[in-house]
Amino acid sequence: MATSLEEVKLLGVVGSPFVCRVQIALNLKGIEYKFLEENLRNKSELLLKYNPVHKKVPVLVHNEKPISESLVILEYIDETWKQDPILPTDPYVVSAASKAVFTVDEKEREKGVEESHEALEILENELKDKKFFGGDEFGFVDISAVFIAFWIPIVQEVAGLKLLTSQKFPKLYKWSQEFVNHPVIKEVLPPRDPLFAFFKALYENLAASK
Amino acid sequence: MATSLEEVKLLGVVGSPFVCRVQIALNLKGIEYKFLEENLRNKSELLLKYNPVHKKVPVLVHNEKPISESLVILEYIDETWKQDPILPTDPYVVSAASKAVFTVDEKEREKGVEESHEALEILENELKDKKFFGGDEFGFVDISAVFIAFWIPIVQEVAGLKLLTSQKFPKLYKWSQEFVNHPVIKEVLPPRDPLFAFFKALYENLAASK
Repeated sequence: MATSLEEVKLLGVVGSPFVCRVQIALNLKGIEYKFLEENLRNKSELLLKYNPVHKKVPVLVHNEKPISESLVILEYIDETWKQDPILPTDPYVVSAASKAVFTVDEKEREKGVEESHEALEILENELKDKKFFGGDEFGFVDISAVFIAFWIPIVQEVAGLKLLTSQKFPKLYKWSQEFVNHPVIKEVLPPRDPLFAFFKALYENLAASK
Repeated sequence: MATSLEEVKLLGVVGSPFVCRVQIALNLKGIEYKFLEENLRNKSELLLKYNPVHKKVPVLVHNEKPISESLVILEYIDETWKQDPILPTDPYVVSAASKAVFTVDEKEREKGVEESHEALEILENELKDKKFFGGDEFGFVDISAVFIAFWIPIVQEVAGLKLLTSQKFPKLYKWSQEFVNHPVIKEVLPPRDPLFAFFKALYENLAASK
């Protein structure tokens, strides 16, 4: 939740569907923000400063950090304020799983595992009896969740953890199998062994530095 | 489909889930591209040129135009190559509906209407008996589709067209009503009347310039 320490500004114009996307997300999360109306024929110094390349709205400015492009802003909002998830898949799970795997602190690890389970539970419920999140064919939500289908099984094995298992999340596990074995996806996934070795080395270096 | 006139390059690293998202989308659409492997400890001139601010991969370069941020790239790919839609909602419908409404050429208009119907049909089928695309609660796909729920009904009235109607798309129409009347969303939608007046003026100016 935005606290008094946080400053959230939105540079936009009323009537733009792209700006409206961001407003819906902020409102859903209950984030207070200041709406700064732009005149697109006479762009403000602020807009030129915060989006110097494209000079387009919307721009979200969170504690002086600017983020542009409405879909990227949605992802950022979802990652920053975790209540009422929008994209039920990626940012939160990535951070929770990383916390679970890449730590030397047992308490941190337990917390990471717990948060990963909570995030995966949302997905399990979301999936219901669909083959993919998008229905019979995979779509945007599935693609954005490639980390969950392919990377989580690797990093959980590296750390000897149980994050995404068929026992705990039968539907999601089945989805992950369908996903990584889909011919269009299988072809572009990176080779598993070097990736496993990379994360294993990272994990062991961390343990050694304890 | 990428023709010999088009040049598609992807700056990435093997093993990044964000790069992999883009590879899945390109592969799904059957787009040929050149993969340029980056060394993130010694970034290429090309990466610094195409993503000067964040210097991050993935960057898609389409005929010398760079696009960064994996979700934005997915949206761009979906808009540019229309086969096998990824985000079943926005970019295609926006362009088809705009073509239908804002033209003085009757043939162009008919084509725009037809393409809008095709795009909306995909959504109708996608929705099935769910309240929202995200299930019982609205999510990323719903938010990204705000144009369809709120803007389409306005612009179709401006031009006296039938794009999204309860007869033709009963499920999608019901969804649009649920969406615009959801308290979290209703609060941030722009006022309808000035928006209607704006599009009406745009439409009439176009007709007058015929």
